[in-house]
Amino acid sequence: MLALDVGGTKLAAALVDATGDVLRRAVTPTPADPWPACLQLLEQVRAGEPVDGVGAGCGGPMTWPAGVVSPLNMPVWKQFPLRDRLAGAYPGVDVRVHNDAVCMVLGEHWTGAAQGVDDVLGMVVSTGVGGGLVLGGRLHSGPSGNAGHIGHLVVEPGGPLCGCGGRGCLEAVARGPAIVAAAAELGCPARDGRELAALAGAGDPIAVAALARAGSAVGRAAASVAALLDLRLVVVGGGIAESGKAFWDPLEQAFRDHARLEFLSGAVVVPAVLGAQAGLVGAAALVLRG
Amino acid sequence: MLALDVGGTKLAAALVDATGDVLRRAVTPTPADPWPACLQLLEQVRAGEPVDGVGAGCGGPMTWPAGVVSPLNMPVWKQFPLRDRLAGAYPGVDVRVHNDAVCMVLGEHWTGAAQGVDDVLGMVVSTGVGGGLVLGGRLHSGPSGNAGHIGHLVVEPGGPLCGCGGRGCLEAVARGPAIVAAAAELGCPARDGRELAALAGAGDPIAVAALARAGSAVGRAAASVAALLDLRLVVVGGGIAESGKAFWDPLEQAFRDHARLEFLSGAVVVPAVLGAQAGLVGAAALVLRG
Repeated sequence: MLALDVGGTKLAAALVDATGDVLRRAVTPTPADPWPACLQLLEQVRAGEPVDGVGAGCGGPMTWPAGVVSPLNMPVWKQFPLRDRLAGAYPGVDVRVHNDAVCMVLGEHWTGAAQGVDDVLGMVVSTGVGGGLVLGGRLHSGPSGNAGHIGHLVVEPGGPLCGCGGRGCLEAVARGPAIVAAAAELGCPARDGRELAALAGAGDPIAVAALARAGSAVGRAAASVAALLDLRLVVVGGGIAESGKAFWDPLEQAFRDHARLEFLSGAVVVPAVLGAQAGLVGAAALVLRG
Repeated sequence: MLALDVGGTKLAAALVDATGDVLRRAVTPTPADPWPACLQLLEQVRAGEPVDGVGAGCGGPMTWPAGVVSPLNMPVWKQFPLRDRLAGAYPGVDVRVHNDAVCMVLGEHWTGAAQGVDDVLGMVVSTGVGGGLVLGGRLHSGPSGNAGHIGHLVVEPGGPLCGCGGRGCLEAVARGPAIVAAAAELGCPARDGRELAALAGAGDPIAVAALARAGSAVGRAAASVAALLDLRLVVVGGGIAESGKAFWDPLEQAFRDHARLEFLSGAVVVPAVLGAQAGLVGAAALVLRG
């Protein structure tokens, strides 16, 4: 199975076997014209073997299942027919395209932190905040393929303006650039999430508070959705989720404070474990476990 | 199809036909010993005809699908085996028991405000705040039957204490007694939701503000879940939803302010239309459309 993960900063492709193992993997920075680079990566990991299907994850928005993509993080693609292009390159096999955050959750569900759990919310806290849902053991896409948009739960009424036009969305509070900007307003010199996490790790109180605000918001959202969907597991990945205790302690505290209903006893939020591979494993899962 | 709706203040039973029409209906105040009264009501609407199934809605918590109920609003029933009792009384037919708010949504989905809509959140804003989800045209119960618990979305971080032990849950903000209590603290004389709605209708500013706070919270929750689950329709019923413009205008404003993603264009929140019948029609749907 060929898998493709299209991101604004890098492209990745992999050959994934029927058990979800990544046999070969290739990555390249996203060039100005991404499509030839996608094909080249796919051919590189394919290495001449026969192709039995292609799954691809890509930033949204997109039409689904048609896979016509206009990724916010890749302005050069407007209404790009990713699925049709892949189907043209690999005729006669199943080709599926879905949101990259959805693929991450599918990957974690198949071989990562959510293995064997039938009902799970996955969140990607990174440049944006995305997510996906596995319900009853299957990907829940929703009628237009947009289910899983956890980033637009309102977590701070009257809070910061969101890219969607609303206020106080989880994405507006917890996406990396928002956390860094909030800390910068108070004089924090961190230029990105990694620097902010490093400062927080060294005890900088502004960095600690900024990550705590984001972590708490993620914890409240996770508890809210666990109650709504009868979940016992939420998996959180993405760059910000690698910020350590400054992010995770307030997250877990908020989750415990809010996930109080009896049926939520034992419910947990855990870190994603597959890292950058999750999107590729999940893209393969679109076809193999769709 | 026999349908039963077990509430803390009244019991209702109905004979429902295969199209969701209520052919006969009977209601009685909930007595100290509810079970004999339930049976009597069922026999009354049955009127000697053969029984092809029994569906029942009841307040939670309960085990599901076993239907062993311990309704918060009916302390006399602790671990009452409602489903087994009904199965004993009507042997050889399908007997199903579910949360009363879930039944309301199923009723509205079958013959009410959500007819023909495959993905819908239903909310009951009353003494508590409950709900249910139809996803992909089918009731979504979740692994333990608890999916739909919209009342525990966190809508006011650090807000009022909830019965669940958390803070700022939708139920803590928008349930009738909470709205009335918040208004009473400011000197409002209303003793219940109906009186509060009447005062708000007459322009009382405290009553108007109290219902606005609840309506806004419901609107934020509805927008949050619409984004998460890719919904275009939310149906809101229950006594508080009958409070008129003072509740609905802020609700709709909050929904418009927050449901901004492109795929939510055209999404609406509408009032339930079946009133007290929804629970009975939905209880029948548990069996007929389960």
